[in-house]
Formats: sequence, structure tokens, C-alpha cells
Amino acid sequence: MKLTCTQSELNTNLSLVNRAVPSRPTHPVLGNVLLKADAENQRVSLTAFDLSLGLQTSFNANVEADGAIAIPAKLFNDIVSRLPEGDITLEDSLSEAESDADTESLSITLTSTSGQYKMRGMNSEDFPELPQIEDGMVVKLPVEALIEGLRGSLFATSADETKQVLTGVHLMVQEDSLEFAATDGHRLAVVETLNAKPTSEESQEDEEKPASEDTISSFELTVPARTLRELERMLGLSESSDTVALQFEVGQIIFQGGNHRLTSRTLEGQYPAYRQLIPGQFQRQVAIPRRQLLSAVERIAVLADQKNNIVKFDIDAQAQTIDLTVETQDVGSARESLSAQVTGESIEIAFNVKYLIDGLKALSTSDIQFQMNAANTPVILTPLGGLKMTYLIMPVQIRD
Amino acid sequence: MKLTCTQSELNTNLSLVNRAVPSRPTHPVLGNVLLKADAENQRVSLTAFDLSLGLQTSFNANVEADGAIAIPAKLFNDIVSRLPEGDITLEDSLSEAESDADTESLSITLTSTSGQYKMRGMNSEDFPELPQIEDGMVVKLPVEALIEGLRGSLFATSADETKQVLTGVHLMVQEDSLEFAATDGHRLAVVETLNAKPTSEESQEDEEKPASEDTISSFELTVPARTLRELERMLGLSESSDTVALQFEVGQIIFQGGNHRLTSRTLEGQYPAYRQLIPGQFQRQVAIPRRQLLSAVERIAVLADQKNNIVKFDIDAQAQTIDLTVETQDVGSARESLSAQVTGESIEIAFNVKYLIDGLKALSTSDIQFQMNAANTPVILTPLGGLKMTYLIMPVQIRD
Repeated sequence: MKLTCTQSELNTNLSLVNRAVPSRPTHPVLGNVLLKADAENQRVSLTAFDLSLGLQTSFNANVEADGAIAIPAKLFNDIVSRLPEGDITLEDSLSEAESDADTESLSITLTSTSGQYKMRGMNSEDFPELPQIEDGMVVKLPVEALIEGLRGSLFATSADETKQVLTGVHLMVQEDSLEFAATDGHRLAVVETLNAKPTSEESQEDEEKPASEDTISSFELTVPARTLRELERMLGLSESSDTVALQFEVGQIIFQGGNHRLTSRTLEGQYPAYRQLIPGQFQRQVAIPRRQLLSAVERIAVLADQKNNIVKFDIDAQAQTIDLTVETQDVGSARESLSAQVTGESIEIAFNVKYLIDGLKALSTSDIQFQMNAANTPVILTPLGGLKMTYLIMPVQIRD
Repeated sequence: MKLTCTQSELNTNLSLVNRAVPSRPTHPVLGNVLLKADAENQRVSLTAFDLSLGLQTSFNANVEADGAIAIPAKLFNDIVSRLPEGDITLEDSLSEAESDADTESLSITLTSTSGQYKMRGMNSEDFPELPQIEDGMVVKLPVEALIEGLRGSLFATSADETKQVLTGVHLMVQEDSLEFAATDGHRLAVVETLNAKPTSEESQEDEEKPASEDTISSFELTVPARTLRELERMLGLSESSDTVALQFEVGQIIFQGGNHRLTSRTLEGQYPAYRQLIPGQFQRQVAIPRRQLLSAVERIAVLADQKNNIVKFDIDAQAQTIDLTVETQDVGSARESLSAQVTGESIEIAFNVKYLIDGLKALSTSDIQFQMNAANTPVILTPLGGLKMTYLIMPVQIRD
């Protein structure tokens, strides 16, 4: 193998795939990144895989000789990230003609303008293949829609590894929509993304042909939050007008966008039937500027911290205001007042500030709406305009 | 007490003094910040003190009524930092005319545009006074000189609390210079700042009068690194043309600059006689661009990490180059080449990369100079031009 590429291109791609390298590999080869050079297409690919999450990227390079080698990921990344801009040449020991080289051990030599680094590598054949999906469904989504779906759901997943499916985001693929849902048992976030067109693998290859009758019309799977955080990062490198293809079957999902590919196992277990938690109608509605409310809640949370994190909302239909109050026995008390558009009767209702702040941050519109029935039934937060997102929180009992 | 000030002024000053509030106060009142309002001068002062480090700031405010109160520092800071810009009114319970107020407990009410926060406070008389220095010497230094002195010495202090005096920076005040020195036993950094004019307390008050004969002409003390890091932060808020007054006596130092005052105990114990470690003459000199060498060392350090952190310098007088090499048995090898101005004979010499990198970062000029005699005697790094700084490192034995 021998290739020349730019430091910036190698560095960007290496930093990306490096995130799938396990910090404590169960097998030595998994601590490596697989480098493949393809002379015919003048392309280089990098792959990392922890047996659950796999990341692969490719980029253009001047490839003189084909080849593949597994290189210690951290070492490779640490060196490349510190190199000055300019061309880098990579050559493995098989194609080198060094007289004093130890020809038995596999190694790769990196040459930049100022220096030369020789690293021990491993045989590329020891590196496991990324999972492939032969059949299965394919959905194409604009990058922007995928980013919105992740942004509106990921934060609500559970961090508790014992809660299995709740540590992931539930994806529900339907005829022309993709729904993201996440809950940790205390709150629920649901984002509906339109314009997804599921196609069978076959119809994808022949785009003229309409989806056949036997196309599976609905598919559900739960993807680990960790995978999706890496996906978010990967999407950050794409143009928002790009498209990402989601390909999935039971147990596995693949995201392919531009030169990046992400593969992941899915989470096992039945996801909660969350739709039935969302009330169908509401007796009270409050429209309010989001940022203003968020700032007030963040301030009053300082005192709420001292008392079970509970903030009381005094929603006054007559005055068209919300008063936020916290009273602690030891530390002090606080009150914030905001004007709002209140429909329905006045109500006193209390929330956990943490769940409230999370939701107010995830909603992205300038105005939002609270919908509720009583002080002890689920409350829904939705954006006014913008994407279709539902955030459900349970009120907390007020103790006076 | 009743006063009105801007959120930004209160927030800036509160964040500053807050750093002297101990996270686990030995006495409850030390978890507070002392707020004093002075109606006559229309000034407000804030003080925090952990019995070793004390910070005090003052700023203009509209003071309607004098007063003082100790307020829980974290709570006060957390609320103020989250308030929107605009005026803030602070009023204590003694001057309030609330009918339902608990008149027995001391509290303060903060009112901003959107809300009202009432916090329990403590009696200001319980808050300890910051140390005062009645006699003692005073040195005035430009902010810039002080920043340079700290920048060139602080990094070389020991983090090992058992090493007592080595956890501080040694200050040596002389007739018209102030010297900063720090060592952790492995390397030594010395910065000389000129133009300091020590004056006795008396002569400061009467500036016309020359320093009297009996002025102490030299004074040494060791100031904890933690204190000086806070001083650096405090100086960051000053204009570089400002002046800071250093006032000191055995066991105590006070820095006063603009509206900020920092008091600190000094470290006990005899500081090492470091001057005798610095060789008087050198057989070899190497001048080299600093950033270029720093980058090369940082890159090669990635491999040196794998082998006792040692990098070998091959200084070639004939070729006028330095070759940096690292060879590890397991991971690989590296070589970086740089051109340099070499005076004296060629030499092979090795260093610990960490100490080298620290020094190369602390020196601020674009070119620097290595001065050395042999591969096993102290090596000196100095800036070429710029301030008067000396960085001493011991070479490491080369094992082949």
C-alpha cells in the first residue's frame, strides 16, 4: 500500500471513525482503525467497529498501490491531529524496500513535511467486517429532518443501563413518515418527521417502479442513544440538503449518508406503547414565549434545587399571567411573573424543573404551548409552528 | 440596607470574589459573601475569605441606605448570573416594611425586572475581617509585568501538597527588581521583572520623600500557587497599563489593584537556593524557532508517551540541525528534523517531553535559545528578546 492525502482530510475522517473505537477493546484488533487504499478508484476508507457500533468513511487520495492494514487507532489519531497542514504519505512495510526493515512485522510509515513516523500495525484480515443488510427496508430522509428528530428525542432517553429499551430512541417507520420517540419513564418526547419514503431494497434499485404491494408498510426498532449521538456528530459534517439512507432489519440498522456509513445493532425488548399516554383533548391551553419561560425556570431552579426540584405554576386566566414560585424553609423563596395567553380556567400545577428545562431547551420555536386538563394528569408541551413535536411531563403533587 | 446596581456589575464582581469561597466551609459564615453598602460614597463592596485567601471588590451603586449582610455565596451567585441585564435592587429585612415578614431572621430580597428572590442571610459581624498590613513593604508593579512573572513561573510549581514551599512561587523583592521563581524539583523557572520600586509604607504616603536609609532592601516570601492563579484571573479584569501594589510582611501578602484586593497567607519554610543550580557558562548554544520546535515535540511526544516520555535530541553542529527521535520496542518509532543555529560541538542529549513542552509553552518569544554543557548537566532555555526568563531542565540519561 502507498498513498498520499492531505493532513486535513485524513484528520477529519480519522477523528470521526475514532469514536467507534472502544477504549477497552475486547479483542486487540478492535483498538485499531482499518485503513484501505483502492488504486482503481483513488479512494481511501477508514473503518472502526466495537462490535455494536461501526463507523466507516471514505475520501479521495492519490493511491499508488492497493492495500489494507489495521493501525492502532489512538496513536494514529494523536499523531495525525498534531501534524501540520500539507501532504501526508502512508506506506506499509510490504511495499517498502527498506534494507534494515524487520520484514516479518507489519508496519506503516507516515511521512510528512517535517518528520517520519513508523507504527506497528495488524493484519487487515483480522479486522471484523461491518454488518451488511441484504434485504430489509430503506428509508431516505433529508439530513435536516433526521437532525430535528434526534434533537427532539435523544435528550429524553434513559441513562440507566438497566432500563434496556429506554436507553434508546424508538423509530417507527410508516408509509410516509418516520416517528422518533424517547422516554425514561418520567417524561416522553415524540417527533414526527414527514416526507420519508420507505422503499423495498428492490424498488430502490429501480426508481421508476412504484413500491410493490408486498412492501412492509410499517417497521419499528429501537436504536441505542450512543449510536444516535455519533450519528448526530456525523450529520454535523454533512450539508443539510443531503440525504441519508436508513436501511434496517431485525437487530440491525445502517445509516448511509455521503461518504459516511454508520452501522448499529438495535436494542431488544418491547418498547412501551407511548401513544396511549398522550391525552386526546385538553381543557386548558397556555401559549408563552419559550426563551423567556426557560430563563425564568432556570433562575428559579436555583432555589428549587434546595427543595425536591419542584416549581409551582400559578396560571391565572383572568390576569393572563403565569407566576412561578418556589418556597423553601431554610434558604428563601422566589417568584417570577410572566404574561401568557391562557385559555380555560385558572389552575395551580407543579413540575420538576429538570424535566421542564430539558423540554423547553429541546423545543426550538420562539413560542410554545402547554396543554393540560388537571393538576394531576399529563401535560403536553408543543412548539407553535415548526416541527411536529410532543413533549409529555407529569405534574408533581403540590404540598403546601 | 437598600441599593440598586446593574446585573452585569454585580455579576462580574460576585463571580470574582466567589472563587475565595471554600466549597466545604470550616465555619458556616465562610460559605457566604459579605455585602456592604456605603451610602456616603455610593459604593458597594463584596468580600469572600477562606481564612487563607481573601478577595474583595467594590463598585459604584445607588445606595439609599447603609448596611451589611452575609449572603450564601453559591445561591446568590447562581441567581444573579441567571438574571437578565438591567437594574437589580437589594434590600435587607431590617429596612423592609413587610407586614408578614419574619422580623427575627435576617434576609435579603433581590428584585429584578421579572422576579423577586428572598434569601436567608447571616449577620455581617460574624464574617471575619480580611488581614491588614500596618507596616511592611510596598512594591508597585505594572499589571503587565506581574502577568508576565506569573505566566513564566506558576506552571513550574509542584502540585504535590506534601512538598510545602514548592507548591508556591517564590518572590524576591530587591531594590529595583522583583524575581519570580518556581520549581517542583525537576525543573526550575525564574522570571526577573524590572522597574519595581520598593518603598516603605511611610514613603508611600509621602511620595515626595525618597526611600529612607532604613528601608529593608530585600525581602523574600513564597506565595501559594492557588492564590496566584486567582491573582492572574483578577489581573485579567484590569487594564494592562494599571498598577498593582504588593504589600507584605512575614506570613502575609496583599495585592491591591484598582477596585480589587487579594490577601493571602504565605507558605512557611526555606525556599531552595535555586540560583546556584544555574550554570554560569555554557559550551553549546542552539537558537531555534519556538513554535516549530514545540509542534515537533508535541507530535513526537505521542510516541514518547509509550516509552518513559523521553525524546532524544541529536544536535548536529555541522548540518545546523536538530533531529528529534523516539524509538519504542512495541509501538513504532519517529523522527522529526528541524534546522537550528548551533554553536559549539555536536551532542546527543535527551529530555522528558513533559518538562520540555511546559517550558516551550511558557516562553513567549518567537525564537528561543538552549544553552548546555554536557548530556548530563543542567540545560537552560531562555527567550531571545522579550522578558528575562530562565527555564532549567535536567537532561535524561540516554539508554540505547
